[in-house]
Amino acid sequence: MRILGIDPGLATMGWGLIRTDRNDPRFVSCGIIETLPETPLPQRLLQIDQAVQALLETYQPDAIVFEQLFFAKNVTTAFTVGAARGVAVARCARHTENLYEYTPMQIKQAVVGYGSADKQQVQQMVRLILKLPEHPRPDDAADAVAAALTHCQAGRFGSLHLMK
Amino acid sequence: MRILGIDPGLATMGWGLIRTDRNDPRFVSCGIIETLPETPLPQRLLQIDQAVQALLETYQPDAIVFEQLFFAKNVTTAFTVGAARGVAVARCARHTENLYEYTPMQIKQAVVGYGSADKQQVQQMVRLILKLPEHPRPDDAADAVAAALTHCQAGRFGSLHLMK
Repeated sequence: MRILGIDPGLATMGWGLIRTDRNDPRFVSCGIIETLPETPLPQRLLQIDQAVQALLETYQPDAIVFEQLFFAKNVTTAFTVGAARGVAVARCARHTENLYEYTPMQIKQAVVGYGSADKQQVQQMVRLILKLPEHPRPDDAADAVAAALTHCQAGRFGSLHLMK
Repeated sequence: MRILGIDPGLATMGWGLIRTDRNDPRFVSCGIIETLPETPLPQRLLQIDQAVQALLETYQPDAIVFEQLFFAKNVTTAFTVGAARGVAVARCARHTENLYEYTPMQIKQAVVGYGSADKQQVQQMVRLILKLPEHPRPDDAADAVAAALTHCQAGRFGSLHLMK
């Protein structure tokens, strides 16, 4: 089973792919989709749409996991971050109905064992669980891998969170 | 020239098409795209994407005009309304680079003549300008027609607002 994790954002959207064989997760690949602030919003959203489409075609994930958005500096920021996430979600919905989401706290809980873990602890646990020489980079890609791992853990404990 | 106006929203997205011959605007069609709260968000966003795609294929607009989002009850609402708008914007960006947006105040200013006009005044002016027996319905469709009309007026006064 191939699980694609996505950490949504407009300027930087992290993604990470793992595969699981009998619940044993293995790292496949990760990266970021970047768009530039000087590019008009419609073209930035289109770039995200096309980049996510390319990811889906390349890796054919069986399940896609989003880190849930919770916080934004203000309503204006929430509109644009929500737009970037919405474009990615709609594109993924064309690919599969298996869309899931987890809050940052659920991800920390699943990967480190407690919901108040810091970013470094999450990264180190991602590295250890996936037996990598160093943690995935950059940070947004690591967060996406952590989201994918969370789904793998959630599967073990029967607590999958379908996106509603 | 065919101008498509869009009043973005998740549950109800209004749209309205006008055409202009030497700046004389004529009403073509309007309507709403509706999604149900009980439908999961990914499917709602996909429904919006497909409905906007169908509109673009049917009417082949030369310019597309969004009413700008300004207000949301809270950040969570802003995320989902922003998602719906983002999906529509990305779909439209595949069709044309001629994407514009106007604030509610700019729309009232253009259609009625002052920025603090109420909804009824906007609807009555839309009816008069387009020589319709009654104003377009429902409200979200009328708002979308008003956005399209604003773009037509803005063209006359050299104050087009490309979406940034």
